[in-house]
Amino acid sequence: MDVLNIFEVIGTVAFAAAGALTGIHKHLDLFGVFMLALTTAVGGGIVRDVLIGINPPTAFVYPFFTIISLVTAIIVSINYQWINKFNNVILICDAVGLGAFTAAGANMSFLYEYHRLFITVMMAVLSGVGGGVIRDVFVRDIPFIFQKEVYAVASMVGAICFFYSKPFLLGNGAMYLCFFVTVSIRMVCM
Amino acid sequence: MDVLNIFEVIGTVAFAAAGALTGIHKHLDLFGVFMLALTTAVGGGIVRDVLIGINPPTAFVYPFFTIISLVTAIIVSINYQWINKFNNVILICDAVGLGAFTAAGANMSFLYEYHRLFITVMMAVLSGVGGGVIRDVFVRDIPFIFQKEVYAVASMVGAICFFYSKPFLLGNGAMYLCFFVTVSIRMVCM
Amino acid sequence: MDVLNIFEVIGTVAFAAAGALTGIHKHLDLFGVFMLALTTAVGGGIVRDVLIGINPPTAFVYPFFTIISLVTAIIVSINYQWINKFNNVILICDAVGLGAFTAAGANMSFLYEYHRLFITVMMAVLSGVGGGVIRDVFVRDIPFIFQKEVYAVASMVGAICFFYSKPFLLGNGAMYLCFFVTVSIRMVCM
Repeated sequence: MDVLNIFEVIGTVAFAAAGALTGIHKHLDLFGVFMLALTTAVGGGIVRDVLIGINPPTAFVYPFFTIISLVTAIIVSINYQWINKFNNVILICDAVGLGAFTAAGANMSFLYEYHRLFITVMMAVLSGVGGGVIRDVFVRDIPFIFQKEVYAVASMVGAICFFYSKPFLLGNGAMYLCFFVTVSIRMVCM
Repeated sequence: MDVLNIFEVIGTVAFAAAGALTGIHKHLDLFGVFMLALTTAVGGGIVRDVLIGINPPTAFVYPFFTIISLVTAIIVSINYQWINKFNNVILICDAVGLGAFTAAGANMSFLYEYHRLFITVMMAVLSGVGGGVIRDVFVRDIPFIFQKEVYAVASMVGAICFFYSKPFLLGNGAMYLCFFVTVSIRMVCM
Repeated sequence: MDVLNIFEVIGTVAFAAAGALTGIHKHLDLFGVFMLALTTAVGGGIVRDVLIGINPPTAFVYPFFTIISLVTAIIVSINYQWINKFNNVILICDAVGLGAFTAAGANMSFLYEYHRLFITVMMAVLSGVGGGVIRDVFVRDIPFIFQKEVYAVASMVGAICFFYSKPFLLGNGAMYLCFFVTVSIRMVCM
């Protein structure tokens, strides 16, 4: 498994957990919780793939992301009483998902040879925030991105770090930096 | 007219009727009822075409689907008092539309030579549920698919039947089976 | 700068202003106002590009549209007290944006050599109404297009005028006619 996939896996698990917890808070039944976990986890990636022109989207070709979303939703549902004792679990999961998908999106813009800061930032931010926006629209919240300033900004700063560090950092250093910067900003300004 | 189109026509009429009835229930004016019928009927197909990479989507190229959506919406609006005497008309229309678009979506995954169970199921389910999700988001309901477990499951089981029966059934038998299975499961568990 | 861009610039500024004002009315904070202005202004164009198959969408490649959206949002936010003295400012901005994106969408259908009335109308209407629908979904309103009959009709009539006048009008006459017709119908029936 290469590093792109590791970030996508982290992001998928984190967003699936955030989606499942949101569904439980909104009193959806078990199936609704699963579906919301799934759309939150794979939604952002599908939007990104459609925008770049990957047809059909990766999430349609590899069942892997669907499976880990469902497993995460099941684990979260079973352990809900215990998880709920901690504060801000949804926000923390959301921050990790944001960082992971931002890093994956930024990296994909380089894989597709769009070596321009603006495209990298747009793809990173849209990959990062897409799943959360879809989740919020489905449960009839005003999307978080419109209400909490640091959300999109964290993703943006992470993407800029990726873009400028990429030529200097060996291997996947730029992705780790992007992930770390995005999650840190998001957590500090929670 | 080949059989793919027959399923798309059935699905379009059924979803247009479900959309128009939803619009009337939500007290939209006549034009709003038309627009909701249209987006419900062609929305799922447009989403499917974008995901597969058919540009522009079929619904943009052939006015036929728009026309039958509007004719259906007009007929439903005129006969609303009479239709409303029956229970569950929206749910029945929705079930028929779900079955028809599931069958059409599953078949399209074979036409595009994606002969893998997971892709077939994903495309069938997304084609089937897309129109209803769009309708629910526009009228500010939590999408039905998050609230009623049997909805996506019916579509999934129908798509699996299609996939495994396709090599054995002559002609369009697999599509008829898929349609029948999906609608039956959805109606039994209403 | 060619005339296509002039219409896109007019539409972007008008929709960014309408989005920013909507955000202020909905009591979003400053960042939420910016984000809503941006999604309203570039949303319709992104939807149009995805449907035609332009990957990645123009708004991702040229930062220009993002920049003018943000500048517009800032100007609107600063002058809000003064702007708010006039009635119907959101509706007027929305009408101008509708006309400009309808003209740009209709023209694009010709650039891509889809010389058929139905495709031209579909692309024009979807380009015109897309941004507003996205804005309304995000702030949890039933989209305006479902509530006000003249909205989509104005765009449709404008696109039909474009289609039939295009062979006869020199240069960009057809776009100016489409813009003028759409905005006029929308404003008269406000």
